[in-house]
Amino acid sequence: MKKELNIITFDADDTLWENEPFFRENEQRFCELVNEYADSKQILDTLLKNEVKTLPIYGYGIKGFVLSMIETALELSNNQVSGSTIKKIMQLGKEQLSYPVKLIDGVEDTLSALQGNYILVMATKGDLTDQERKIEKSGLKKYFSHIEIMREKNESGYQSLLNRLQISPDKFLMVGNSLKSDIIPVLSIGGYAAHIPFYTTWEHEKVDDPQECDRMFSLNSIRELLSVI
Amino acid sequence: MKKELNIITFDADDTLWENEPFFRENEQRFCELVNEYADSKQILDTLLKNEVKTLPIYGYGIKGFVLSMIETALELSNNQVSGSTIKKIMQLGKEQLSYPVKLIDGVEDTLSALQGNYILVMATKGDLTDQERKIEKSGLKKYFSHIEIMREKNESGYQSLLNRLQISPDKFLMVGNSLKSDIIPVLSIGGYAAHIPFYTTWEHEKVDDPQECDRMFSLNSIRELLSVI
Repeated sequence: MKKELNIITFDADDTLWENEPFFRENEQRFCELVNEYADSKQILDTLLKNEVKTLPIYGYGIKGFVLSMIETALELSNNQVSGSTIKKIMQLGKEQLSYPVKLIDGVEDTLSALQGNYILVMATKGDLTDQERKIEKSGLKKYFSHIEIMREKNESGYQSLLNRLQISPDKFLMVGNSLKSDIIPVLSIGGYAAHIPFYTTWEHEKVDDPQECDRMFSLNSIRELLSVI
Repeated sequence: MKKELNIITFDADDTLWENEPFFRENEQRFCELVNEYADSKQILDTLLKNEVKTLPIYGYGIKGFVLSMIETALELSNNQVSGSTIKKIMQLGKEQLSYPVKLIDGVEDTLSALQGNYILVMATKGDLTDQERKIEKSGLKKYFSHIEIMREKNESGYQSLLNRLQISPDKFLMVGNSLKSDIIPVLSIGGYAAHIPFYTTWEHEKVDDPQECDRMFSLNSIRELLSVI
């Protein structure tokens, strides 16, 4: 499909750099902080419930995650959780907001090989401040002609992106780890999508596999991208 | 300057709709919630210190404000603040994230009169999710050809915006209430700026008046914009 393709758009979190493992680690630390009030399963279920409930007002990202951990600690302890535990929860968030950015294997080689032959775009969702921090720290900014921080990666979000880039969906390939956010909505509007699973996915992002579609590619590593386009 | 001007860019918070008064109200409510630990001045000083300290990682917006209120309550109470008070602080934030959007007088008439003669752009900073919510609720989206949510409204932020809009600064007018964020950086890069003070300004946004500049206009109301361009 090379001769027709103009724009390759990359998801960032867990496609270009690691992100979800930091949430998993902090969920485990959070469980230890409040384990006098419930077992790990109940803690994580309550946290997920609170995160999903507040997504419409908090949006994606670490600040909403911290607020949801605090809400969960209050809920499970009947407001008895101590101030020092709340402070430790906030500290988890501050640390997560300052972690180094760890690129996924093959990312830099692949972007470097594609640059010049395609217009490369980064499309991510989440917290503006934190995404900008990761973009800066990643050293990858130089490969991208456009960086988009989307509120929701759904069909209308991608349609707006295509309008802004002034490109038709059949010249657009999205590369990402999330079937829900990177693959299914792009296939739905007629674009191409390359799915590269990451080893861990947030519960709220999990969906059934999409129907087979000849505009979708399943890859084991970002390095395989060069052989399918 | 009408014949030369192409793009008029509007700040949103406290220029198109009210925003800062909600922070002021919640600061007062916060003082009442923790008044057993300090007087109002000390509470507000500590809150401001914590907000400014965490701006680089939290960014602008209500979620960072809530986290800073919690941090302030912990700090002033030596971690003795109760879980139910923390819960009330979080509730203040949730309410603020759901407030109706109240347009400032004259906004809709002015935008309606300008539309068609100029390209209108909205450039705001802050939390992505919350700004998108306010843009939707405001009913003003139809007037703007481009909406930009910036991380920082400084010289390099405006220069990137001009590059993206493919316009030179002498065809660019910025309209806003904040000397620090809307006026001074735009004048510095050679653009025009119309300052419309709002009756309340966040301490961290306060700066000295800029040097006189014939590319700056001081207005009492957005309605006056029509007579100066």
